[in-house]
Amino acid sequence: MRAAIIEGDGIGKEVIPEAVAILDYFNETYDWGIEKVPVEVGLGKWEKTGSAITDDDISLLKTCNLILFGAITTVNDPSYKSVLLRIRKELDLYANVRPILPISGIYKLLKIKDHKEENVNIVIVRENTEGLYSGVEEIGAEKSMTTRVITKRASERIAAFASNLASARKNKLLVVHKSNVLKSDKLFLDTCRQTAESRGVDVSDKLVDIFAYDLIMNPEKYDVVVTTNLFGDILSDLGAVLLGSIGLAPSANIGDNQAFFEPVHGSAPDIAGKGIANPIAAVLSLKMMFDYMGKTREACLVSRAVTAAVADKIVTPDLGGKYSTKEVGDFILSKV
Amino acid sequence: MRAAIIEGDGIGKEVIPEAVAILDYFNETYDWGIEKVPVEVGLGKWEKTGSAITDDDISLLKTCNLILFGAITTVNDPSYKSVLLRIRKELDLYANVRPILPISGIYKLLKIKDHKEENVNIVIVRENTEGLYSGVEEIGAEKSMTTRVITKRASERIAAFASNLASARKNKLLVVHKSNVLKSDKLFLDTCRQTAESRGVDVSDKLVDIFAYDLIMNPEKYDVVVTTNLFGDILSDLGAVLLGSIGLAPSANIGDNQAFFEPVHGSAPDIAGKGIANPIAAVLSLKMMFDYMGKTREACLVSRAVTAAVADKIVTPDLGGKYSTKEVGDFILSKV
Ligand SMILES: CC(C)[C@H](C(=O)O)[C@@H](O)C(=O)O
Ligand SMILES: CC(C)[C@H](C(=O)O)[C@@H](O)C(=O)O
Repeated sequence: MRAAIIEGDGIGKEVIPEAVAILDYFNETYDWGIEKVPVEVGLGKWEKTGSAITDDDISLLKTCNLILFGAITTVNDPSYKSVLLRIRKELDLYANVRPILPISGIYKLLKIKDHKEENVNIVIVRENTEGLYSGVEEIGAEKSMTTRVITKRASERIAAFASNLASARKNKLLVVHKSNVLKSDKLFLDTCRQTAESRGVDVSDKLVDIFAYDLIMNPEKYDVVVTTNLFGDILSDLGAVLLGSIGLAPSANIGDNQAFFEPVHGSAPDIAGKGIANPIAAVLSLKMMFDYMGKTREACLVSRAVTAAVADKIVTPDLGGKYSTKEVGDFILSKV
Repeated sequence: MRAAIIEGDGIGKEVIPEAVAILDYFNETYDWGIEKVPVEVGLGKWEKTGSAITDDDISLLKTCNLILFGAITTVNDPSYKSVLLRIRKELDLYANVRPILPISGIYKLLKIKDHKEENVNIVIVRENTEGLYSGVEEIGAEKSMTTRVITKRASERIAAFASNLASARKNKLLVVHKSNVLKSDKLFLDTCRQTAESRGVDVSDKLVDIFAYDLIMNPEKYDVVVTTNLFGDILSDLGAVLLGSIGLAPSANIGDNQAFFEPVHGSAPDIAGKGIANPIAAVLSLKMMFDYMGKTREACLVSRAVTAAVADKIVTPDLGGKYSTKEVGDFILSKV
């Protein structure tokens, strides 16, 4: 099994090593036989070579079953912005999965009072290949158009993925859409309904505007949510409110042949190099990788170790602590 | 001056009379000379006549400067769903304005602790005529497409509107977009920037995904926000989290010749007829109408009366009170 390791730029270079240390520990102790493949992409590479990601990088990534990714710095250059999107597209990573499950103890640490931690356990599944991200654009000085493409095939595929997830949880799937205005969402909604029903999953649906409101007001009502690409983009960042900080959010991008795990936060150039970046989102992304690999026990150990760091307040400044990235990483490693 | 009064369906028939009583009071006491024009649209009309809104209704609305609207019940019929959208379109009500300004005392009443009321004072300005609402749809069984149309003209118009609003407040305008993915948003962003700058308004911008998160996490950072149609739809419902309840949200749809005011809530068939619907959003929509008419003093009286109702807990069951729609309406009227 090959796991690509992409640190990327900025704090990616600081948080990924902490996650890799945990991966190394399990890999060596239990002889998992994972071969690590470092891959360089991003601004650093762009500055050296003029390209942020090459065809060779893509080919290399295709030889890896797993990819652990940090963050890249986006500069204002059209060829540049699409690194993440290019990887998603070329590897056909069609399911973007964002668990909205707060670390236990984090609401107390962050003094969040309006929600109850134990009421929040949601997974947002975002269709990751089409919709407004299809790249169908018509540009003009007076008028520009972006076409939102919804296909039955992609809708079926993501609905099947989300239904599988739902059936392992509460067997409930919520489809979020705007079919009262967008006719293309009627195809999405109908296809999701059929797919979920044919798999025996209870399916309901909600309009995206009121769902955005209700996700924050009544998170306890929700479990597995499936939605189109851009709605998923918005809603999954929004869902991070319920995590206490977007800096704690892990994510996975899953395809039929590869799976890609990344913290949601960016490369944070403002704090890069200071050794104070919070490694928790990267570590929780590794936990998602363990879950994906079927290493459920190890995944649990990782989340328990993160919970211990929060309980003992061994945390970085963003969470009100005084520890460094490495100290937090070492602590988590010592607890797994 | 002619003001159309559309009660619509469900609780629309209960809350609008409370707002109208206040309008009547000012109109009669100060001889404003407003002629009320009752207009029937919605499910009730559809059941009686087979159409929810007619060409004659539209013509009639065009003769009215002001429109006060309650809510309509949407049934699952394609011709039906579009009543509100049809009015917006035919009257060219291009600016959808949603103030996110909590009623003072409401956080205490609703026991909201994670935000400070005095930190929240935002206006979301939504472009109301194009974007994904342009109606450019291609429907198929395997593939459906909705085209998001952005024009320079509509972007300029909404940016000018939002800039005017901004210059009367903190002179700061935030443009919310997704131009890192949608090329059509580059036109929107660039046009908004130019328009705001040419009017001397400080302009900044933010991506819609992270803005959705930050609106809830750090509302104190925001003042006037301008965005495209569907983003505005989502973000303005989301913003109602900061009001304590979407049931308290008023809104305006403004065009060059008419302005249309409506509570954001729907017709709530589940509680309709019980006399317990909260009239506050309708009353605050009337307040927006007064502001639009330049009746600033009267608008202030209305919001002070609403604040008094909250302070004295003369509120409907949704806010934990035991009063009826009429009792709350009467109380507010007695305080204006
Ligand atoms: C960086 C950007 C293109 C990306 C997206 O829009 O998908 C990001 O917001 C995400 O959610 O991973
Ligand atoms: C009812 C619906 C068509 C409408 C919209 O999408 O604009 C509503 O959500 C709104 O915000 O006024």
